[in-house]
Amino acid sequence: MKKGRVEAFSDGVIAIIITIMVLEMKVPPGDNLYALLPMVPVFLSYILSFIYLGIYWNNHHHLFQAVEQVEGLVLWANLHLLFWLSLIPFVTAWMGENHFSLWPVAVYGVVLLMAGFAYFLLTRALLRNHGKDSSLVVAIGNDRKGKISLAIYVLAISLCFINQWLAFGLYIITAVIWVVPDRRIENTLNR
Amino acid sequence: MKKGRVEAFSDGVIAIIITIMVLEMKVPPGDNLYALLPMVPVFLSYILSFIYLGIYWNNHHHLFQAVEQVEGLVLWANLHLLFWLSLIPFVTAWMGENHFSLWPVAVYGVVLLMAGFAYFLLTRALLRNHGKDSSLVVAIGNDRKGKISLAIYVLAISLCFINQWLAFGLYIITAVIWVVPDRRIENTLNR
Amino acid sequence: MKKGRVEAFSDGVIAIIITIMVLEMKVPPGDNLYALLPMVPVFLSYILSFIYLGIYWNNHHHLFQAVEQVEGLVLWANLHLLFWLSLIPFVTAWMGENHFSLWPVAVYGVVLLMAGFAYFLLTRALLRNHGKDSSLVVAIGNDRKGKISLAIYVLAISLCFINQWLAFGLYIITAVIWVVPDRRIENTLNR
Amino acid sequence: MKKGRVEAFSDGVIAIIITIMVLEMKVPPGDNLYALLPMVPVFLSYILSFIYLGIYWNNHHHLFQAVEQVEGLVLWANLHLLFWLSLIPFVTAWMGENHFSLWPVAVYGVVLLMAGFAYFLLTRALLRNHGKDSSLVVAIGNDRKGKISLAIYVLAISLCFINQWLAFGLYIITAVIWVVPDRRIENTLNR
Repeated sequence: MKKGRVEAFSDGVIAIIITIMVLEMKVPPGDNLYALLPMVPVFLSYILSFIYLGIYWNNHHHLFQAVEQVEGLVLWANLHLLFWLSLIPFVTAWMGENHFSLWPVAVYGVVLLMAGFAYFLLTRALLRNHGKDSSLVVAIGNDRKGKISLAIYVLAISLCFINQWLAFGLYIITAVIWVVPDRRIENTLNR
Repeated sequence: MKKGRVEAFSDGVIAIIITIMVLEMKVPPGDNLYALLPMVPVFLSYILSFIYLGIYWNNHHHLFQAVEQVEGLVLWANLHLLFWLSLIPFVTAWMGENHFSLWPVAVYGVVLLMAGFAYFLLTRALLRNHGKDSSLVVAIGNDRKGKISLAIYVLAISLCFINQWLAFGLYIITAVIWVVPDRRIENTLNR
Repeated sequence: MKKGRVEAFSDGVIAIIITIMVLEMKVPPGDNLYALLPMVPVFLSYILSFIYLGIYWNNHHHLFQAVEQVEGLVLWANLHLLFWLSLIPFVTAWMGENHFSLWPVAVYGVVLLMAGFAYFLLTRALLRNHGKDSSLVVAIGNDRKGKISLAIYVLAISLCFINQWLAFGLYIITAVIWVVPDRRIENTLNR
Repeated sequence: MKKGRVEAFSDGVIAIIITIMVLEMKVPPGDNLYALLPMVPVFLSYILSFIYLGIYWNNHHHLFQAVEQVEGLVLWANLHLLFWLSLIPFVTAWMGENHFSLWPVAVYGVVLLMAGFAYFLLTRALLRNHGKDSSLVVAIGNDRKGKISLAIYVLAISLCFINQWLAFGLYIITAVIWVVPDRRIENTLNR
């Protein structure tokens, strides 16, 4: 089975998710800069989610470059990842509209955690039908960055109950870590 | 006529349908977990529809792998399928917001039935311009799973008028049957 | 310049237009069949527009199969067509919510007329950089069906001011004429 | 790394942005032409933004035709461009609903300026991994048109505080300049 249509479908879904978030930014009543003021938290949470979805698209792109073939389980592991990503516009709007209050920040972290876990499952599903010497196996390696991210999300969700800004800071740090593209896979492919 | 653009267009439409459903999940007023409570049925019906649309995308993907060429009738049979799938976000929201009450659950079943029937018509339209020895003919076979599903949907819609949860249970069972990818086609292709 | 990305972009825009129309169908308050009753005109106008967009996608698909290359003017002629198609969800909702009253039906016809005219301009732009013996020239021929449609739209818009159902009937008749795929191009390609 | 998926993803995002703008045009109450009257400014600002997004898609299309390969930085420079483009539906609706009053027109200009700057950064990122003799380098040249546009946007934003219609006029002039396709790249490719 070829990977082309899986890539196209994932691109489509991620493109739509990243774009419809802007539909949650309702046009404010009033025509001056003060009217935009209450939108600042909504806008900040939009930027954070845009970056996270950009990270997922980039990593998905890098990952599938090393993929040789896909089978049924991979299709479902991929849909499972897209499911959690599809919830990001909802939690983004909830977090922004409530000015980063406790529960929305925690639930946002849970969605990030589940998406991270779904991405991990996708790599496992892909490894099942790639040989031990395939460039995919070498490229994914021990996936340290992925595992550390999951640990940070769990820590962040816990820290919410002390102060949700600690969690928010950790979400930003994790994003920064990932914006650097996944050199592991690129390096292996270029070798 | 080549099949590439039919696949791309179908991927696009299904990707949009699966994603805009999340727009029906309005951000709740309130910033705690209780605020999310009334969203539980909406969320459950979102999950069910996400899985059904995933099934259709997977089966469509498998089906078109065995397709060699498409003609005018196939384009319309495909658009007819996409029409019924496009109604899923509407019936999903109606069912979720009304907490799975009688009529929304029945109408949801009618849309599933019509989509299933449209998929059946699509396979017939495809068979018209594929030879008797084509891998498509062998792959579709007698399409037992498809026909059983249609029978289950009819049964489920009838059972609604006794208790709509029986119907809802049958929708879940049918989804589970289909999540297993369509081995018939894959097996034939791999032979 | 290759035509692949123009096809992909057009597929994307038409896929989105055809799907977001369903977002205009607001979930009705109430959970029985009577609650769906006021939606019947909205639903009917959705079906008509779905068919028209399907026709445009099919014809676009057929047309570009015979295209060999595109240049700057074609890109803008194509965007111009997509602009008028993008207004269809708006006029569809306006027409449906006002139960096919005079002005919405007339404005719907104006959008159909402009889209038809934009399609005509697109074929002219394409012919500019295809030789007189190209399969595109032979395939488009004298474009009788396209010209007749434009005339019908003008007639329908005028008839609105006698009775808008005459116009609505003409829209249906034109759709039926076009659902038959554009054999001219197919025949030429298969020769 | 191949450029195909970057093109497909960008096409998807721009296709969605250009289309969801129409969702901001709420169906007016009332079924006659007077009901459409208050929509005229919304419609005008929709046309302007549709043309700007068309320009970006066209230029992106032309630019990537000369691209040979993409690397991590290009992916992020491209996402950065898509981010600013994604804000266009929001500022379009704000500008249209407030009938082109001072601040919305100025903020619209800021988004155009940032998108123009992001496009400039994208060309720089692409040049980093293309040789001095590549067709891309020759094609982009000194990018006079791009730099002039940025200067016009700055001028327009300043002129807003005298009269916002001066700014609006400049946005239209810049659009007209760009609707002429980027002959620099095309000429180089055809040499």
